[in-house]
Amino acid sequence: MSTLLESYAAGRWFRAADEGEPLLDAATGEEVARISSRGLDVPAMVRHARETGGPALRSLTFHERAALLKALAKHLNEHKDELYALSVRTGATARDTAIDVDGGIGTLFSYASRGVRELPNDTIVLDGGLERLSKGGTFVGRHLYASRPGVAVQINAFNFPVWGMLEKLAPAFLAGLPSIVKPASQTAYLTEAAVRLIIGSGILPEGTLQLLAGGAAGLLDALTVQDSVAFTGSAHTAGILRRHPNVLDGGVQLGVEADSLNCSILGPDVRPDDPEFDLFVKGVVTEMTVKAGQKCTAIRRVLVPGPVAESVVEALAARLAKVTVGDPRNPDVRMGALASLGQRDEVRKAVEALTASAEVVAGGPAGTLGGATLLDADPVRGAFMTPLLLRARRGAAAPHDVEPFGPVSTVLAYDGLDEAVALAARGRGSLVASVATHDPEVARAVVLGLAPWHGRVLVLDRDDAKESTGHGSPLPVLVHGGPGRAGGGEELGGIRGVLRHMQRTAVQSSPDLLTAVTRHWTTGAARNESGVHPFRKSLAELRIGDTIASAPRTVSLADIDHFAEFTGDTFYAHTDPEAAARNPLFGGIVAHGYLVVSLAAGLFVDPAPGPVLANFGVDALRFLTPVKAGDAIAVTLTVKQITPRSGADYGEVRWDAVVTNQDGTPVATYDVLTLVAKTWPAADG
Amino acid sequence: MSTLLESYAAGRWFRAADEGEPLLDAATGEEVARISSRGLDVPAMVRHARETGGPALRSLTFHERAALLKALAKHLNEHKDELYALSVRTGATARDTAIDVDGGIGTLFSYASRGVRELPNDTIVLDGGLERLSKGGTFVGRHLYASRPGVAVQINAFNFPVWGMLEKLAPAFLAGLPSIVKPASQTAYLTEAAVRLIIGSGILPEGTLQLLAGGAAGLLDALTVQDSVAFTGSAHTAGILRRHPNVLDGGVQLGVEADSLNCSILGPDVRPDDPEFDLFVKGVVTEMTVKAGQKCTAIRRVLVPGPVAESVVEALAARLAKVTVGDPRNPDVRMGALASLGQRDEVRKAVEALTASAEVVAGGPAGTLGGATLLDADPVRGAFMTPLLLRARRGAAAPHDVEPFGPVSTVLAYDGLDEAVALAARGRGSLVASVATHDPEVARAVVLGLAPWHGRVLVLDRDDAKESTGHGSPLPVLVHGGPGRAGGGEELGGIRGVLRHMQRTAVQSSPDLLTAVTRHWTTGAARNESGVHPFRKSLAELRIGDTIASAPRTVSLADIDHFAEFTGDTFYAHTDPEAAARNPLFGGIVAHGYLVVSLAAGLFVDPAPGPVLANFGVDALRFLTPVKAGDAIAVTLTVKQITPRSGADYGEVRWDAVVTNQDGTPVATYDVLTLVAKTWPAADG
Repeated sequence: MSTLLESYAAGRWFRAADEGEPLLDAATGEEVARISSRGLDVPAMVRHARETGGPALRSLTFHERAALLKALAKHLNEHKDELYALSVRTGATARDTAIDVDGGIGTLFSYASRGVRELPNDTIVLDGGLERLSKGGTFVGRHLYASRPGVAVQINAFNFPVWGMLEKLAPAFLAGLPSIVKPASQTAYLTEAAVRLIIGSGILPEGTLQLLAGGAAGLLDALTVQDSVAFTGSAHTAGILRRHPNVLDGGVQLGVEADSLNCSILGPDVRPDDPEFDLFVKGVVTEMTVKAGQKCTAIRRVLVPGPVAESVVEALAARLAKVTVGDPRNPDVRMGALASLGQRDEVRKAVEALTASAEVVAGGPAGTLGGATLLDADPVRGAFMTPLLLRARRGAAAPHDVEPFGPVSTVLAYDGLDEAVALAARGRGSLVASVATHDPEVARAVVLGLAPWHGRVLVLDRDDAKESTGHGSPLPVLVHGGPGRAGGGEELGGIRGVLRHMQRTAVQSSPDLLTAVTRHWTTGAARNESGVHPFRKSLAELRIGDTIASAPRTVSLADIDHFAEFTGDTFYAHTDPEAAARNPLFGGIVAHGYLVVSLAAGLFVDPAPGPVLANFGVDALRFLTPVKAGDAIAVTLTVKQITPRSGADYGEVRWDAVVTNQDGTPVATYDVLTLVAKTWPAADG
Repeated sequence: MSTLLESYAAGRWFRAADEGEPLLDAATGEEVARISSRGLDVPAMVRHARETGGPALRSLTFHERAALLKALAKHLNEHKDELYALSVRTGATARDTAIDVDGGIGTLFSYASRGVRELPNDTIVLDGGLERLSKGGTFVGRHLYASRPGVAVQINAFNFPVWGMLEKLAPAFLAGLPSIVKPASQTAYLTEAAVRLIIGSGILPEGTLQLLAGGAAGLLDALTVQDSVAFTGSAHTAGILRRHPNVLDGGVQLGVEADSLNCSILGPDVRPDDPEFDLFVKGVVTEMTVKAGQKCTAIRRVLVPGPVAESVVEALAARLAKVTVGDPRNPDVRMGALASLGQRDEVRKAVEALTASAEVVAGGPAGTLGGATLLDADPVRGAFMTPLLLRARRGAAAPHDVEPFGPVSTVLAYDGLDEAVALAARGRGSLVASVATHDPEVARAVVLGLAPWHGRVLVLDRDDAKESTGHGSPLPVLVHGGPGRAGGGEELGGIRGVLRHMQRTAVQSSPDLLTAVTRHWTTGAARNESGVHPFRKSLAELRIGDTIASAPRTVSLADIDHFAEFTGDTFYAHTDPEAAARNPLFGGIVAHGYLVVSLAAGLFVDPAPGPVLANFGVDALRFLTPVKAGDAIAVTLTVKQITPRSGADYGEVRWDAVVTNQDGTPVATYDVLTLVAKTWPAADG
């Protein structure tokens, strides 16, 4: 008997009391492992996550969490051969495995990198700008995202045992949520192997990742308002989850990614001899055959202009005929097995429903291995299937309702762009659509028509084809999900995927207390003008609110003339009194905006060598009031935000800069971004 | 018999066939109106919204929609006396009416203003920056929000017949969604009057607002995947809506704002003689009495440190004793009637449940008019009630579970900050919490502890009290909603409330086609260097992608020296060769960043008078590579976005600026923001 998979629960590996159910190799039918969760204390897992994993994780800053993800990605990368060896047993070819294993590790790397670059080195995230809520400025508002003191339950589909786990784990982990992963049984041995690598590495704080191998009875019953469930799988199972009382009335947040009837559209501008025609055909065949079509993003509906439908079918059939099907251990196999014989039966049933209004035009007869080039394919014990192309009759309904979760697509002809979009919409919400076109007007019309119905839209043309990652690949930096039938959820999307796990809260306060809450200096809050120039302070010494208020400097006409001559910026508003007088905004010569900020820098810098290493940028510079000759400007520079960089001996300091004129009226506001050494010898120089 | 309210449905006012149900004046019990929707073709309303209102609305840009909201706000403002007259019949005092009527109109004004300032003059919104998806830069991604071709159904509560409608209508309208408004019957006569004003004004395109007065049978059955329901009301009704098949399986999006057990916390730092003590007491009494406590944001739980609990109760009781209760037509009345006798019965039932573990400490005995100063209060026909203060016994559970939707609050003592936060969390998710404190550490700890459980947190102290809008007031620019028991929804929040109604979609494409789709120039897309300097083109003539690529200019050491001397920016990296050499980032003298951008402006400006009126700002300036003496810099300036301003003879042009050195390496990238005249005479000057 094969190994019984274990759950990683409440800090230890748990082995069920019974023998479990067998899990079979997709290609050979041999038993790979057995699975059971009998006797597992599921509520204890939830408590462990809440009481041990969550607090440990939330004591770390986003940057610290990101560093752990990076270490984890490296560790898995070093051990990925172990995962490759198991992946083949799911029916996956080397190409399929790369999507699952390398794609999962790449997602970890992406979140590690984004976490450092786009999140603060803190435990909360500010959202949007300061809202001034009163005339006097003593009452202000700001939105922030805070971590939930809950658990992220992740219920994954069988088709991506590694990527499916990691793409949910990474954003939840960054968000401060411990995860309980429940893989689909069918391929759980690969997920279990990945979790063993992760737990064995000791990189993640205990309790931040637990594995539930086997049935999950009682899991949802243990969840409450701060917990969430992220589910990938069938619309049917999603419907069951939605009906759980803790979801309906208990405040448990449920996100769903369901299979959907994604489409790919050949633009009406594309002729058979255009490059986009071939690119389109290649794309459809790739999506039909990668993972044997078992991807929730695969192309199920191929929408083509009526006049070229016949050419498209021929080209697709010709290319499909070359696809080799068989045991993925054979390197010449292009398409491996479906995940199980049961899965193949499901696909056969769906094909049967489709053929009521569509004919098989490649790979038939339906349900046989006819038309395929077979390599090492055991037709009885292996879940093999020939890629099947159908062509729907006009007005067919089934292609918009029936999802064959395998290597099956249906060609539908359309007449005009509006019908193409209308047919796409008949899928009632999908994860992704693609369009092959090189016409800018077609691109705009189709993309905006498809957008409300899709989470992602890919435009394929001769310019991006070589570098395109293709219709079926969710990317960590782009949202993954879709409305309606696709489940209505959203995953990934870079930091969006992190914030989705956090609670957004509006905070209303005085500027001083808002500064204390956010650790971000707020306009109107107290400034600390201690007498020590803040450029003399290291990152360790600087405090939010440290300020330098400069002396005034008068801007003369000679300054403006000279700056124009020196820089070459002889724009009429600075040089031509008559033309400047006619300018509706100025009514006379004004100083260059760049002169104002240059002089302001001259007023605030402290020149001697010190901990300030560089000014690396300026944000949100606005010129509010023209500066005219004779005006005296002064600048106030205040420490707004301090972000130590892990692994560097400096950090970023964001300064609030306000330039005012002799009346105290702001003439320019902006943020100055500097790099400041973490420490600096006390003595000057 | 009084008037039968009518529905505004499919372009006409509909009058039900029957006599309807009577709606009674809250204070006098007189019949105000009758209500019925019998015979109303509800599915036809949905079709009308989809086929007439939606397309009309989505043919307008965000700025055009915002202008209509502004006109509408002005119109309602001019006619608000008509609404005031009806509002008193709901039991509302003048203060209550201001919150409902003026608050609603203010929300329209706010959205009108934000729509112009924060949304593009287009029909889609870009989300986040460009994602480079490939090494070569030919495959890029970007997120956008697109309008849904659906209907926004709004089911409102009885307590804010005007604000409740307008706070949902404004963001939906901006988002391009036609609304069907279903007010609670109890106060529907006031909503109907507001809708009559709106429809009568002719400002909104036909089909963008419909009113369903009376029962809404069949409404949800007519909705599909692009439609949404925004519901405010009880958790019980929310549960019914969540169970509708079109919500469970049909992809209809449901947002819920449910009543919640909001709390206010007196900080442990506050002593009875601190200003925050009085502010806290005043805040609690205000929330108990405004709208007779019938606000989903009212304070139900008053959390105070054990040692001062007695003082708090005394102060609250003293202040409550001064509250005059009665007919809101009497200007000396501070608190009016509850909405109906039935509503008062509900509150009495809730108080009964609470008194099992709490004692009445002000306003008793419970359920009587004892303790109140009554003015013109008909005790039989008017739904009057004395404000009731309870004090819970230690460990009481009911105050965290039972919501008295009236002028009732319960005092609970806590011991230490952690217990205060834990007690707040026992409400299982609320709309809002407040804390009175003047201690920065208390503020941070409490706000971050409360944040995951609340949509809004107010910090009250001596600095913001005078201008604070108070615990109970949702503001249009801040999110309104809360997790768990509060419904899990989010409304308002400025533009966040608009985007929530739209579909976010990731678009993947070549830069050229992404530019075509978004009408926003994308890095890597074609540039148009036609020979005509783009500063010579008016807004009408400029096109996305128009470019000026400058000649190079060498930056000499003399330039750097001179700039340092002229501006006073003598930072050591520009002036001190030895110190600059020690700088880990530069290793020698570098040009000032401000010098680089000043010289770049000298390279790209076309000086003669023309349509370019002003440079009003710079965004996202980053210095990527140091510029050293002898480097030759050049700049490329490309039109990125064109935003005509309605009602002005100019618009905004956002330019992409890239400064490169002699090796073609970017040294600085930024956006330049200019104002450009819409038209300009063809001849120069």
